[in-house]
Amino acid sequence: MGEKQILMIPGPTNIPPRVLQILGEPAVGHRTPGFSKVVKDVTEGLQRVYQTKNDLFILTSSGTGAMEAAVANFVNAGDKVLVMENGNFGERWVKLTTRYGANVEVISGPWGEQANPQALRERIEKDVHKEIKAVYVTHNETSTGVRNDIKALRDAMGDHPAIFIVDAISGMAVSPLPVDEWKLDVVVSGSQKAFMLPPGLAFISVSPKAWAVCEQVTTPSFYFNLKAARKSYEKFTTPYTPAASLILGLQESLKIIEEEGLENIYRRHDFYKKVVRTAVKALGLELLTNDEAASSAVTAIKKSANLDVQQLTKIMRDKHNVVIAGGQGKLKGEIFRIGHLGYVDVNDIIVTIAALERTLKELGWEFTLGQGVATVQELLVEGER
Amino acid sequence: MGEKQILMIPGPTNIPPRVLQILGEPAVGHRTPGFSKVVKDVTEGLQRVYQTKNDLFILTSSGTGAMEAAVANFVNAGDKVLVMENGNFGERWVKLTTRYGANVEVISGPWGEQANPQALRERIEKDVHKEIKAVYVTHNETSTGVRNDIKALRDAMGDHPAIFIVDAISGMAVSPLPVDEWKLDVVVSGSQKAFMLPPGLAFISVSPKAWAVCEQVTTPSFYFNLKAARKSYEKFTTPYTPAASLILGLQESLKIIEEEGLENIYRRHDFYKKVVRTAVKALGLELLTNDEAASSAVTAIKKSANLDVQQLTKIMRDKHNVVIAGGQGKLKGEIFRIGHLGYVDVNDIIVTIAALERTLKELGWEFTLGQGVATVQELLVEGER
Repeated sequence: MGEKQILMIPGPTNIPPRVLQILGEPAVGHRTPGFSKVVKDVTEGLQRVYQTKNDLFILTSSGTGAMEAAVANFVNAGDKVLVMENGNFGERWVKLTTRYGANVEVISGPWGEQANPQALRERIEKDVHKEIKAVYVTHNETSTGVRNDIKALRDAMGDHPAIFIVDAISGMAVSPLPVDEWKLDVVVSGSQKAFMLPPGLAFISVSPKAWAVCEQVTTPSFYFNLKAARKSYEKFTTPYTPAASLILGLQESLKIIEEEGLENIYRRHDFYKKVVRTAVKALGLELLTNDEAASSAVTAIKKSANLDVQQLTKIMRDKHNVVIAGGQGKLKGEIFRIGHLGYVDVNDIIVTIAALERTLKELGWEFTLGQGVATVQELLVEGER
Repeated sequence: MGEKQILMIPGPTNIPPRVLQILGEPAVGHRTPGFSKVVKDVTEGLQRVYQTKNDLFILTSSGTGAMEAAVANFVNAGDKVLVMENGNFGERWVKLTTRYGANVEVISGPWGEQANPQALRERIEKDVHKEIKAVYVTHNETSTGVRNDIKALRDAMGDHPAIFIVDAISGMAVSPLPVDEWKLDVVVSGSQKAFMLPPGLAFISVSPKAWAVCEQVTTPSFYFNLKAARKSYEKFTTPYTPAASLILGLQESLKIIEEEGLENIYRRHDFYKKVVRTAVKALGLELLTNDEAASSAVTAIKKSANLDVQQLTKIMRDKHNVVIAGGQGKLKGEIFRIGHLGYVDVNDIIVTIAALERTLKELGWEFTLGQGVATVQELLVEGER
């Protein structure tokens, strides 16, 4: 029997068979009327997921490429920008804006807690000369399993003219993020998360306010230049050869998303969060975040006493065919993470908790075997009532 | 019956079923020892195709992304660079280097002829103060169906210290390009050409001489930063999430390339060039390039008298299920192009010429029906002798 591995990492996620089937179909030309129809269709589908009427573009890159687009197109060297940083991906905004010569001010918060809207509000109020040009935030901080409160952060900006830029790579189509209602100027996401595709596509929306800033920017960019993308999109094509097979796969995965409906998707992910957290606690392990701050896409679990995280993830993968993730950045070796976003069902979660139990047993962790799965079962039965 | 379309454009190319099968397989984690083995394996396979011991990196982007990497990593604003331009993709080097603030000098040549090594030699000899930092050239100019003489161009540089940068996107694994033997410093290619994959991956090799230049460069780059790639490659991983499914497909397509052998691949493409050119001439059409300059990847055919190129490509596609390409840039409307690179066999060429004959008949072009295919048949029978 071949390997039957399940991915319980915070992306790349498992891919639905309906999408896989399309990814295995013969190549198509990307400069044809038929393919332009596909680009139009998926762009409109993405706008519905984003809940936006803003322009939206598909880039052939992973999410970081779209993050670079969200810097290179909107920041001139010397511009004052603010980054809300409470994890590895907040740090990526810091690195990117710094690399592009911005005058970067960082509001750092503890890894494992939410970014602080009050701190942002105070800084914004102090900016009487409106020197801040852009504020960079992270929707779902994949590295810590924290969902930041984007609405509160945006509200803290009030009517300050700075543009508000969101990394929603692992949070889009997991937790609500109504782009227009919340007035989010630039929002980045990626194919390999809740869009249930392989990595290789990234998406970016641009508000009229952000376009006005973009017009003033002279920072060099070519592959990720959004003005070039906008020009090509007039004919629903892309300036450079797109990852055509992934775009066809996206068309199918967007259908799957529409069939389930965004509200149901949010609810399902919230339920997974509850189930995983409850089960992990039942095994005597400690969570990195509190319930309020916790992400519905990924759960971070603290390394306890004598548990070796690297060993744990290795046994899970090699012996039990369940791939989970370790820590990133300064949490490397300190936590492990279970992803539960995208094409994940309750059976995947049962298998994961069961594998975690057997792994913990092997590592000498003390608990009642079966306790984690039993907790999941109880929540499932309760959920059916 | 579903559509059974063949792609006879100069990329994306048709994909072998063995590769398609892998592209339709479930997702894998990209931060695992197993995936690092794959990255190591495909990198070594690419180095064999490139015939190089230089560092080589896989980027998740289309070829233009790697072209941007070949500019952003090696050029400071104000640097003097030389571009040999004789087509749309030579122009892309001009646009990219200009965008990055280089002091760009262009040696332009007629579209449809080879870049002129003598012109380069003269310019290099005049550069007594060694002000030129980099020379950008195109191996196979996809827009005109011209294969430039890279060896002669490189030889024209002599021991001038400028680095020599080659866009080999549509030429790699079609015509010889021994990177080390010819001393090519930076060489860019892409997955959707002779590597027989969907678009989404690009490859770039970097010589020690190019690394020495890179160390001096302060131009901002992040997603395409090659120093970051080099650091991650120490563990055969990538700095950002790679298009993992395409990399697994690449492993299979490299196997297919090794099974056939580079010399056989070059010979096969040369034969296709001969067959297509001979057949097209037999139909009374005129070629854009002479035999010497002509590419083995794509053949450009002049629009004759009352032929409408757009109409012609449309009929080929919609009625006969054969996708060919029109012209690009200033040759738009002036030529049409038949791609014959990658996963193409003689039967595909017979079908294409047959479809072209029926299309020409419909458009009122005067010739003897069957003459094109008969010419192909003669060359095939001759080839078997």
